Amino acid sequence: MTSSPRGFSNVALALVHHPVYDRNRREVATAVTNLDIHDLARLARTYGMAGFYVVTPVDEQRELVQRITSHWGEGFGGSYNPDRREALSLLRVAATLDEVLAHMEKSSGCRPKIVVTGAKERENSLAFSALRRRIGQGEEQWLMLLGTGWGLTDEIFERADCVLEPVRGNGDYNHLSVRAAAAIIVDRLLGER
Amino acid sequence: MTSSPRGFSNVALALVHHPVYDRNRREVATAVTNLDIHDLARLARTYGMAGFYVVTPVDEQRELVQRITSHWGEGFGGSYNPDRREALSLLRVAATLDEVLAHMEKSSGCRPKIVVTGAKERENSLAFSALRRRIGQGEEQWLMLLGTGWGLTDEIFERADCVLEPVRGNGDYNHLSVRAAAAIIVDRLLGER
Repeated sequence: MTSSPRGFSNVALALVHHPVYDRNRREVATAVTNLDIHDLARLARTYGMAGFYVVTPVDEQRELVQRITSHWGEGFGGSYNPDRREALSLLRVAATLDEVLAHMEKSSGCRPKIVVTGAKERENSLAFSALRRRIGQGEEQWLMLLGTGWGLTDEIFERADCVLEPVRGNGDYNHLSVRAAAAIIVDRLLGER
Repeated sequence: MTSSPRGFSNVALALVHHPVYDRNRREVATAVTNLDIHDLARLARTYGMAGFYVVTPVDEQRELVQRITSHWGEGFGGSYNPDRREALSLLRVAATLDEVLAHMEKSSGCRPKIVVTGAKERENSLAFSALRRRIGQGEEQWLMLLGTGWGLTDEIFERADCVLEPVRGNGDYNHLSVRAAAAIIVDRLLGER
Protein backbone atom coordinates (compact mmCIF):
# COMPACT_ATOMS: atom_id res chain seq x y z
CA MET A 1 0.00 0.00 0.00
CA THR A 2 3.04 2.20 -0.31
CA SER A 3 1.87 4.01 -3.42
CA SER A 4 -1.39 5.12 -1.84
CA PRO A 5 -2.56 8.70 -2.31
CA ARG A 6 -0.79 9.44 0.95
CA GLY A 7 2.53 8.74 -0.70
CA PHE A 8 5.57 6.53 -0.65
CA SER A 9 6.43 5.36 2.83
CA ASN A 10 9.12 3.14 1.33
CA VAL A 11 11.31 5.87 -0.21
CA ALA A 12 13.50 8.47 1.48
CA LEU A 13 15.89 11.09 0.16
CA ALA A 14 19.32 12.00 1.55
CA LEU A 15 21.43 15.01 0.63
CA VAL A 16 25.06 14.03 1.19
CA HIS A 17 27.69 16.67 2.06
CA HIS A 18 30.44 14.09 2.69
CA PRO A 19 32.09 12.13 1.14
CA VAL A 20 31.84 14.09 -2.11
CA TYR A 21 34.43 15.42 -4.56
CA ASP A 22 35.45 19.02 -5.05
CA ARG A 23 36.30 20.39 -8.50
CA ASN A 24 39.78 18.87 -8.27
CA ARG A 25 38.43 15.45 -7.27
CA ARG A 26 39.57 15.77 -3.71
CA GLU A 27 37.29 14.24 -1.08
CA VAL A 28 35.67 17.03 0.94
CA ALA A 29 32.72 17.95 3.13
CA THR A 30 30.70 20.70 1.43
CA ALA A 31 28.80 23.39 3.30
CA VAL A 32 25.05 23.09 3.75
CA THR A 33 23.02 25.43 1.51
CA ASN A 34 19.89 26.83 3.14
CA LEU A 35 17.79 26.69 -0.05
CA ASP A 36 18.67 23.02 -0.66
CA ILE A 37 17.10 22.14 2.65
CA HIS A 38 13.84 23.95 1.99
CA ASP A 39 13.57 22.84 -1.65
CA LEU A 40 14.21 19.18 -0.93
CA ALA A 41 12.01 19.07 2.17
CA ARG A 42 9.12 20.55 0.13
CA LEU A 43 9.82 18.09 -2.68
CA ALA A 44 9.84 15.10 -0.29
CA ARG A 45 6.63 16.32 1.34
CA THR A 46 4.85 17.00 -1.97
CA TYR A 47 5.58 13.50 -3.25
CA GLY A 48 4.70 11.87 0.06
CA MET A 49 8.15 10.45 0.78
CA ALA A 50 9.04 8.80 4.09
CA GLY A 51 11.80 11.22 5.02
CA PHE A 52 14.55 13.60 4.03
CA TYR A 53 18.03 13.31 5.59
CA VAL A 54 20.76 15.93 5.54
CA VAL A 55 24.10 14.17 5.97
CA THR A 56 27.19 15.99 7.19
CA PRO A 57 29.93 14.90 9.59
CA VAL A 58 30.59 18.53 10.61
CA ASP A 59 29.01 19.20 14.03
CA GLU A 60 28.51 22.93 13.42
CA GLN A 61 26.74 22.22 10.14
CA ARG A 62 24.35 19.76 11.75
CA GLU A 63 23.64 22.34 14.46
CA LEU A 64 22.96 24.94 11.76
CA VAL A 65 20.40 22.66 10.11
CA GLN A 66 18.79 22.01 13.49
CA ARG A 67 18.54 25.76 14.09
CA ILE A 68 16.85 26.24 10.71
CA THR A 69 14.32 23.50 11.40
CA SER A 70 13.65 24.74 14.94
CA HIS A 71 13.14 28.28 13.69
CA TRP A 72 10.50 27.17 11.19
CA GLY A 73 9.11 24.37 13.33
CA GLU A 74 8.33 26.30 16.48
CA GLY A 75 6.93 29.59 17.67
CA PHE A 76 6.74 32.51 15.29
CA GLY A 77 8.39 30.86 12.27
CA GLY A 78 6.10 27.85 12.47
CA SER A 79 2.90 29.84 12.65
CA TYR A 80 4.09 32.40 10.06
CA ASN A 81 4.72 29.70 7.47
CA PRO A 82 2.96 26.40 8.31
CA ASP A 83 3.70 24.90 4.84
CA ARG A 84 7.38 25.26 5.53
CA ARG A 85 6.99 23.73 8.98
CA GLU A 86 5.11 20.78 7.52
CA ALA A 87 7.84 20.14 4.94
CA LEU A 88 10.66 20.46 7.45
CA SER A 89 8.99 17.98 9.79
CA LEU A 90 10.31 15.30 7.39
CA LEU A 91 13.90 16.44 7.87
CA ARG A 92 16.50 14.64 9.99
CA VAL A 93 20.18 15.38 10.29
CA ALA A 94 22.75 12.60 10.35
CA ALA A 95 26.53 12.50 10.60
CA THR A 96 27.02 9.57 8.23
CA LEU A 97 25.28 7.39 5.69
CA ASP A 98 25.39 4.52 8.19
CA GLU A 99 23.43 6.59 10.66
CA VAL A 100 20.73 7.15 8.01
CA LEU A 101 20.58 3.44 7.18
CA ALA A 102 20.31 2.51 10.85
CA HIS A 103 17.51 5.04 11.39
CA MET A 104 15.53 3.79 8.39
CA GLU A 105 16.02 0.18 9.39
CA LYS A 106 14.79 0.96 12.89
CA SER A 107 11.65 2.72 11.67
CA SER A 108 10.73 0.30 8.87
CA GLY A 109 12.16 -2.97 10.16
CA CYS A 110 14.04 -3.50 6.91
CA ARG A 111 17.45 -2.42 5.59
CA PRO A 112 16.94 0.04 2.71
CA LYS A 113 18.48 -0.42 -0.69
CA ILE A 114 20.82 2.44 -1.62
CA VAL A 115 20.22 4.20 -4.93
CA VAL A 116 22.84 6.64 -6.18
CA THR A 117 22.50 9.16 -8.92
CA GLY A 118 25.01 11.18 -10.85
CA ALA A 119 25.43 13.20 -14.01
CA LYS A 120 27.83 10.74 -15.65
CA GLU A 121 26.85 7.75 -17.81
CA ARG A 122 27.88 4.48 -16.13
CA GLU A 123 27.68 0.83 -17.10
CA ASN A 124 24.85 -1.25 -15.64
CA SER A 125 22.84 1.76 -14.60
CA LEU A 126 19.16 1.22 -13.91
CA ALA A 127 16.54 2.94 -16.11
CA PHE A 128 14.02 5.27 -14.44
CA SER A 129 11.16 3.05 -15.59
CA ALA A 130 12.72 -0.06 -14.01
CA LEU A 131 13.29 1.59 -10.64
CA ARG A 132 9.82 3.16 -10.76
CA ARG A 133 8.33 -0.31 -11.15
CA ARG A 134 10.35 -1.77 -8.29
CA ILE A 135 9.44 1.10 -5.97
CA GLY A 136 5.77 0.72 -6.91
CA GLN A 137 5.80 -2.93 -5.88
CA GLY A 138 6.31 -1.67 -2.34
CA GLU A 139 8.26 -4.68 -1.11
CA GLU A 140 11.54 -2.91 -0.46
CA GLN A 141 12.76 0.22 1.31
CA TRP A 142 14.73 2.70 -0.79
CA LEU A 143 17.17 5.45 0.10
CA MET A 144 18.01 7.84 -2.74
CA LEU A 145 21.34 9.62 -2.30
CA LEU A 146 21.99 13.02 -3.83
CA GLY A 147 25.54 14.36 -3.88
CA THR A 148 26.66 17.95 -3.46
CA GLY A 149 29.86 19.58 -4.75
CA TRP A 150 31.22 17.67 -7.74
CA GLY A 151 29.34 14.49 -6.85
CA LEU A 152 29.35 11.41 -4.61
CA THR A 153 32.68 9.60 -4.29
CA ASP A 154 33.48 6.24 -5.90
CA GLU A 155 33.35 4.68 -2.42
CA ILE A 156 29.64 5.60 -2.20
CA PHE A 157 28.95 4.35 -5.72
CA GLU A 158 30.56 1.02 -4.74
CA ARG A 159 28.32 0.71 -1.67
CA ALA A 160 25.16 1.37 -3.68
CA ASP A 161 22.67 -1.33 -4.59
CA CYS A 162 21.61 0.50 -7.76
CA VAL A 163 23.03 3.27 -9.89
CA LEU A 164 20.24 5.22 -11.54
CA GLU A 165 20.75 6.42 -15.11
CA PRO A 166 21.53 10.15 -15.34
CA VAL A 167 18.93 12.75 -16.28
CA ARG A 168 19.70 13.60 -19.89
CA GLY A 169 18.47 16.79 -21.45
CA ASN A 170 18.71 17.49 -25.14
CA GLY A 171 22.34 17.54 -26.17
CA ASP A 172 25.55 17.04 -24.26
CA TYR A 173 25.21 19.79 -21.65
CA ASN A 174 24.26 18.21 -18.36
CA HIS A 175 24.89 20.51 -15.42
CA LEU A 176 21.67 20.72 -13.45
CA SER A 177 21.70 22.01 -9.89
CA VAL A 178 21.11 19.35 -7.23
CA ARG A 179 17.75 21.05 -6.54
CA ALA A 180 16.61 20.69 -10.16
CA ALA A 181 18.04 17.19 -10.62
CA ALA A 182 16.36 15.96 -7.43
CA ALA A 183 12.99 17.35 -8.52
CA ILE A 184 13.20 15.67 -11.92
CA ILE A 185 14.37 12.33 -10.48
CA VAL A 186 11.64 12.22 -7.82
CA ASP A 187 8.96 13.18 -10.33
CA ARG A 188 10.11 10.51 -12.79
CA LEU A 189 10.12 7.84 -10.08
CA LEU A 190 7.08 8.80 -8.01
CA GLY A 191 5.07 11.33 -10.03
CA GLU A 192 1.63 10.78 -11.54
CA ARG A 193 1.66 9.13 -14.99
CA MET B 1 13.10 20.26 -36.61
CA THR B 2 12.65 21.95 -33.28
CA SER B 3 12.93 18.75 -31.27
CA SER B 4 16.31 17.83 -32.72
CA PRO B 5 19.06 16.59 -30.38
CA ARG B 6 20.18 20.20 -30.19
CA GLY B 7 16.99 21.10 -28.41
CA PHE B 8 13.86 23.18 -28.53
CA SER B 9 14.40 26.44 -30.36
CA ASN B 10 10.66 27.13 -30.10
CA VAL B 11 10.39 27.25 -26.28
CA ALA B 12 11.68 29.85 -23.84
CA LEU B 13 11.33 30.28 -20.09
CA ALA B 14 10.67 33.51 -18.18
CA LEU B 15 10.94 34.04 -14.45
CA VAL B 16 8.53 36.84 -13.56
CA HIS B 17 9.16 39.10 -10.53
CA HIS B 18 6.26 41.44 -11.36
CA PRO B 19 3.26 41.40 -11.41
CA VAL B 20 3.01 38.69 -8.75
CA TYR B 21 1.16 38.42 -5.46
CA ASP B 22 2.63 38.56 -1.99
CA ARG B 23 1.24 36.43 0.85
CA ASN B 24 -1.59 38.91 1.38
CA ARG B 25 -2.51 38.91 -2.32
CA ARG B 26 -1.12 42.38 -2.90
CA GLU B 27 0.54 42.95 -6.26
CA VAL B 28 4.28 43.37 -5.74
CA ALA B 29 7.67 43.10 -7.40
CA THR B 30 9.73 40.40 -5.68
CA ALA B 31 13.50 40.50 -5.32
CA VAL B 32 15.68 38.45 -7.64
CA THR B 33 17.19 35.34 -6.01
CA ASN B 34 20.70 34.51 -7.18
CA LEU B 35 20.19 30.72 -7.12
CA ASP B 36 17.01 30.96 -9.23
CA ILE B 37 19.03 32.52 -12.00
CA HIS B 38 21.71 29.84 -12.03
CA ASP B 39 19.29 26.93 -11.59
CA LEU B 40 16.93 28.04 -14.34
CA ALA B 41 19.70 28.99 -16.77
CA ARG B 42 21.24 25.53 -16.30
CA LEU B 43 17.84 23.92 -16.74
CA ALA B 44 17.13 25.86 -19.95
CA ARG B 45 20.58 25.00 -21.30
CA THR B 46 20.33 21.29 -20.37
CA TYR B 47 17.00 20.95 -22.20
CA GLY B 48 18.16 22.97 -25.19
CA MET B 49 15.64 25.80 -24.82
CA ALA B 50 15.75 28.95 -26.90
CA GLY B 51 16.23 31.33 -24.00
CA PHE B 52 15.68 32.27 -20.38
CA TYR B 53 14.33 35.70 -19.44
CA VAL B 54 14.43 37.33 -16.02
CA VAL B 55 11.60 39.87 -15.83
CA THR B 56 11.64 42.72 -13.33
CA PRO B 57 10.61 46.37 -13.69
CA VAL B 58 13.10 47.42 -11.00
CA ASP B 59 16.18 49.00 -12.64
CA GLU B 60 18.55 48.07 -9.81
CA GLN B 61 17.41 44.44 -9.97
CA ARG B 62 18.02 44.24 -13.70
CA GLU B 63 21.47 45.75 -13.15
CA LEU B 64 22.16 43.15 -10.45
CA VAL B 65 21.30 40.33 -12.85
CA GLN B 66 23.53 41.91 -15.50
CA ARG B 67 26.39 42.06 -13.01
CA ILE B 68 25.93 38.37 -12.16
CA THR B 69 25.96 37.37 -15.83
CA SER B 70 28.95 39.60 -16.61
CA HIS B 71 30.89 38.19 -13.68
CA TRP B 72 30.39 34.62 -14.89
CA GLY B 73 30.48 35.46 -18.58
CA GLU B 74 33.76 37.29 -18.76
CA GLY B 75 37.31 37.19 -17.41
CA PHE B 76 38.08 35.12 -14.33
CA GLY B 77 34.53 33.95 -13.58
CA GLY B 78 34.00 32.73 -17.14
CA SER B 79 37.19 30.73 -17.30
CA TYR B 80 36.83 29.41 -13.74
CA ASN B 81 33.39 27.96 -14.47
CA PRO B 82 32.71 27.58 -18.22
CA ASP B 83 29.56 25.47 -17.62
CA ARG B 84 28.03 28.34 -15.73
CA ARG B 85 29.04 30.78 -18.46
CA GLU B 86 27.47 28.57 -21.09
CA ALA B 87 24.19 28.39 -19.17
CA LEU B 88 24.07 32.13 -18.47
CA SER B 89 24.61 32.93 -22.15
CA LEU B 90 20.90 32.04 -22.56
CA LEU B 91 19.84 34.67 -20.03
CA ARG B 92 18.30 38.02 -20.93
CA VAL B 93 16.82 40.61 -18.59
CA ALA B 94 13.60 42.43 -19.42
CA ALA B 95 11.52 45.05 -17.66
CA THR B 96 8.15 43.65 -18.73
CA LEU B 97 6.42 40.68 -20.29
CA ASP B 98 5.80 42.77 -23.42
CA GLU B 99 9.52 43.31 -23.79
CA VAL B 100 10.06 39.54 -23.71
CA LEU B 101 7.34 38.94 -26.30
CA ALA B 102 8.78 41.60 -28.59
CA HIS B 103 12.26 40.13 -28.30
CA MET B 104 11.06 36.60 -29.08
CA GLU B 105 8.97 37.82 -31.98
CA LYS B 106 11.95 39.68 -33.40
CA SER B 107 14.26 36.65 -33.18
CA SER B 108 11.79 34.01 -34.40
CA GLY B 109 9.55 36.04 -36.69
CA CYS B 110 6.48 34.81 -34.84
CA ARG B 111 4.54 35.95 -31.77
CA PRO B 112 4.93 33.32 -29.01
CA LYS B 113 2.00 31.75 -27.23
CA ILE B 114 2.05 32.42 -23.49
CA VAL B 115 1.83 29.43 -21.15
CA VAL B 116 1.26 30.06 -17.46
CA THR B 117 1.69 27.65 -14.62
CA GLY B 118 0.57 27.71 -11.03
CA ALA B 119 0.03 25.48 -8.04
CA LYS B 120 -3.78 25.87 -8.05
CA GLU B 121 -6.26 23.72 -9.99
CA ARG B 122 -8.09 25.79 -12.63
CA GLU B 123 -10.80 25.05 -15.13
CA ASN B 124 -9.79 24.42 -18.76
CA SER B 125 -6.19 23.82 -17.90
CA LEU B 126 -4.08 22.00 -20.46
CA ALA B 127 -2.62 18.56 -19.64
CA PHE B 128 1.16 18.14 -19.79
CA SER B 129 0.78 15.50 -22.51
CA ALA B 130 -1.29 17.83 -24.71
CA LEU B 131 1.17 20.72 -24.45
CA ARG B 132 4.09 18.33 -24.99
CA ARG B 133 2.50 17.22 -28.26
CA ARG B 134 1.89 20.75 -29.47
CA ILE B 135 5.43 21.84 -28.64
CA GLY B 136 6.80 18.77 -30.43
CA GLN B 137 4.96 19.71 -33.62
CA GLY B 138 7.29 22.70 -33.78
CA GLU B 139 4.88 25.00 -35.57
CA GLU B 140 4.48 27.54 -32.79
CA GLN B 141 6.70 29.57 -30.47
CA TRP B 142 6.10 29.13 -26.73
CA LEU B 143 6.93 31.27 -23.74
CA MET B 144 6.54 29.56 -20.36
CA LEU B 145 6.02 31.96 -17.46
CA LEU B 146 7.06 31.07 -13.93
CA GLY B 147 5.88 33.24 -11.08
CA THR B 148 7.77 34.16 -7.92
CA GLY B 149 6.33 35.18 -4.55
CA TRP B 150 2.78 33.84 -4.12
CA GLY B 151 2.28 33.43 -7.87
CA LEU B 152 1.44 35.27 -11.09
CA THR B 153 -1.47 37.72 -10.91
CA ASP B 154 -4.90 37.14 -12.45
CA GLU B 155 -4.05 39.78 -15.07
CA ILE B 156 -1.24 37.53 -16.35
CA PHE B 157 -3.47 34.45 -16.27
CA GLU B 158 -6.00 36.35 -18.38
CA ARG B 159 -3.36 37.27 -20.96
CA ALA B 160 -2.17 33.68 -21.28
CA ASP B 161 -2.97 31.47 -24.26
CA CYS B 162 -2.80 28.31 -22.15
CA VAL B 163 -2.90 27.48 -18.48
CA LEU B 164 -0.91 24.35 -17.77
CA GLU B 165 -2.27 21.90 -15.20
CA PRO B 166 -0.44 22.06 -11.85
CA VAL B 167 2.23 19.59 -10.83
CA ARG B 168 0.49 17.27 -8.39
CA GLY B 169 2.47 15.17 -5.96
CA ASN B 170 0.89 12.47 -3.86
CA GLY B 171 -1.66 14.03 -1.56
CA ASP B 172 -2.85 17.56 -1.04
CA TYR B 173 0.45 19.23 -0.14
CA ASN B 174 1.66 21.21 -3.12
CA HIS B 175 4.29 23.76 -2.18
CA LEU B 176 7.26 23.19 -4.44
CA SER B 177 9.89 25.88 -4.84
CA VAL B 178 9.88 27.64 -8.21
CA ARG B 179 13.23 25.95 -8.91
CA ALA B 180 11.80 22.45 -8.34
CA ALA B 181 8.50 23.15 -10.11
CA ALA B 182 10.31 24.57 -13.15
CA ALA B 183 12.56 21.52 -13.38
CA ILE B 184 9.61 19.11 -13.23
CA ILE B 185 7.54 21.09 -15.75
CA VAL B 186 10.38 21.39 -18.27
CA ASP B 187 11.24 17.70 -17.92
CA ARG B 188 7.61 16.66 -18.41
CA LEU B 189 7.27 18.84 -21.51
CA LEU B 190 10.67 18.44 -23.15
CA GLY B 191 12.44 15.50 -21.46
CA GLU B 192 13.26 12.15 -23.04
CA ARG B 193 10.43 9.60 -22.97
